[in-house]
Amino acid sequence: MTDETKTIWWNDENNSVMLIDQTKLPVEFSVIEVTTVERLAEAIRRLEVRGAPALGVAGAFGVALSALSCVSDAEFAETVAADAELLRSTRPTAVNLAWGIDKVLRSMENLPPEMAKFLAITAAKNIAAEDEKCCMLLGHNGASLLPQIGTVLTHCNAGALACSTWGTALGVIRSAHKMGKKISVISCETRPLLQGARLTAWELSHDAIPVTSIIDAEAAYLMRQGKIDCVVVGADRITRDAVFNKIGTYMHAVCAKHHNIPFYVAAPASTFDVDAAEADIVVEERNRDEVASFWGKPTVPEGVPVINYAFDATPLDLVSAIITEKGVFYPPYDFSSLRQM
Amino acid sequence: MTDETKTIWWNDENNSVMLIDQTKLPVEFSVIEVTTVERLAEAIRRLEVRGAPALGVAGAFGVALSALSCVSDAEFAETVAADAELLRSTRPTAVNLAWGIDKVLRSMENLPPEMAKFLAITAAKNIAAEDEKCCMLLGHNGASLLPQIGTVLTHCNAGALACSTWGTALGVIRSAHKMGKKISVISCETRPLLQGARLTAWELSHDAIPVTSIIDAEAAYLMRQGKIDCVVVGADRITRDAVFNKIGTYMHAVCAKHHNIPFYVAAPASTFDVDAAEADIVVEERNRDEVASFWGKPTVPEGVPVINYAFDATPLDLVSAIITEKGVFYPPYDFSSLRQM
Repeated sequence: MTDETKTIWWNDENNSVMLIDQTKLPVEFSVIEVTTVERLAEAIRRLEVRGAPALGVAGAFGVALSALSCVSDAEFAETVAADAELLRSTRPTAVNLAWGIDKVLRSMENLPPEMAKFLAITAAKNIAAEDEKCCMLLGHNGASLLPQIGTVLTHCNAGALACSTWGTALGVIRSAHKMGKKISVISCETRPLLQGARLTAWELSHDAIPVTSIIDAEAAYLMRQGKIDCVVVGADRITRDAVFNKIGTYMHAVCAKHHNIPFYVAAPASTFDVDAAEADIVVEERNRDEVASFWGKPTVPEGVPVINYAFDATPLDLVSAIITEKGVFYPPYDFSSLRQM
Repeated sequence: MTDETKTIWWNDENNSVMLIDQTKLPVEFSVIEVTTVERLAEAIRRLEVRGAPALGVAGAFGVALSALSCVSDAEFAETVAADAELLRSTRPTAVNLAWGIDKVLRSMENLPPEMAKFLAITAAKNIAAEDEKCCMLLGHNGASLLPQIGTVLTHCNAGALACSTWGTALGVIRSAHKMGKKISVISCETRPLLQGARLTAWELSHDAIPVTSIIDAEAAYLMRQGKIDCVVVGADRITRDAVFNKIGTYMHAVCAKHHNIPFYVAAPASTFDVDAAEADIVVEERNRDEVASFWGKPTVPEGVPVINYAFDATPLDLVSAIITEKGVFYPPYDFSSLRQM
């Protein structure tokens, strides 16, 4: 993924939304052109587009699509409101999706349709551009933490495919690579949905950054062999005492500590939930099939239950630094500067 | 798997070998009747039967099958020797397979065919019975280490399916269950080949021992939540300073230490390689496809390499106790009593 390639972008020629179909990677690279709100809602539901920042952009583009598609000025407000609700319902727990939708809705408030249409596109494109700028800054801030020559372990996909471009954890790696550091990456496959094997490995090899895929359970042994210099992961939410991220992150943090390897988290300031604590957060449990079958065929005997947490919590005492677009936080952590935003 | 069910056994009625087809589990339970050495060799090659102790029994039964199938006394010695070599070649690195073959060959040495046939069957059945007795003793020795009520984490399949019956790590769990302890099991799926999800979950649910399947990367988070009381795993080889077992074992040991949870290894005395050290052992690296595809369909982009160690090494300072049929070893470890065997 070069500077020019994005995960999701606005096509000015057709006033449509373009997105990489992430369900087809790595077997097939295909770009979908979305011209209706209904098709965009389907794309979100089917995970053709995924990742918190990317969903914010998708929601924003969706409202712009809705505004542009209105032919009747009389029904404008009603149509846009209904479409916004349709989009919002596709991933009800995705905070960024609702945030992107609301931001564009607010930009149109109390304006005549023609002006509202124009401002909706502008607002949506701004959200995409801001996300990109945020990742670039974050990447720049984190790159100096990586060694001049070394191997970075990462988990899941906190990459360009989760944002509009560049990525958070992978943004740090990309920025280090761009400044001439010789970084190679160990990408944990990330069971159950293999975002690491499918998406992270694809992104990085596309950018000619050396990447090797492993099963998640092999990371600790590579640490023991001295083959990992640091760990960099993203985050779904950061409370005042813990980092919530894809299940498996905590295991890497414990093993990194045991081997005295730095463990870094890369996330935009919008990920922080400074007033909450780990104990306040309910960790989402997902369906049995994700773990108990593969491509529709069972891998676990019928009747045997699974526990399928979508993410885990890593206490801050295992985290060496948290990289944001506003700077790098070090222990003892004090996030109060982020509360004023 | 009750006391009556075995993984591999001799059928006296037909003088044939019966084995559970492990490649079909957990979708289908089927027993294969093997009447020729060629078919047995195929079963070993295709992993229809697997696990070090079970392969020892398979090799022994194979030589007995060969002896019984000989109609010409003149060609007896030649036929049996050729069949033994065929069996040995199926898994050249499986020490137990060769051990089982050789033990039965020795029992027939310099005897007339009729007596040799009789003694071959007896020797082969003895090997199976010894394996069973060994697992039972080991299970009994280890059961007292488990809590009266609690949850045990295990990795891969060190169960009846890897032996002729009962199992090593799962033997300890079965024995504890039999003595009335309320044990439930968390079975790590064990990527890449999912022996934990497919075989361990199947065995235990078949025995009505409560079992839950998880992805390997979730174990540490369950430890953090206080949901795991101890870890019990098997071993492929134990040197004077480390336990070699399925990849992922080391990660569990590090995380158990971090959470102050006992980490137990269960293995027969024949697993010990007391004069060797971790540094002497080359860890087998297996093929890319095991990690990079699932049921023939790629999950890792073409050209992206993998590192696929079959097992890892856990230093003894992370091991709380080692359970054998000859007793339980505790730190500081001294295995010299095993050298005299």
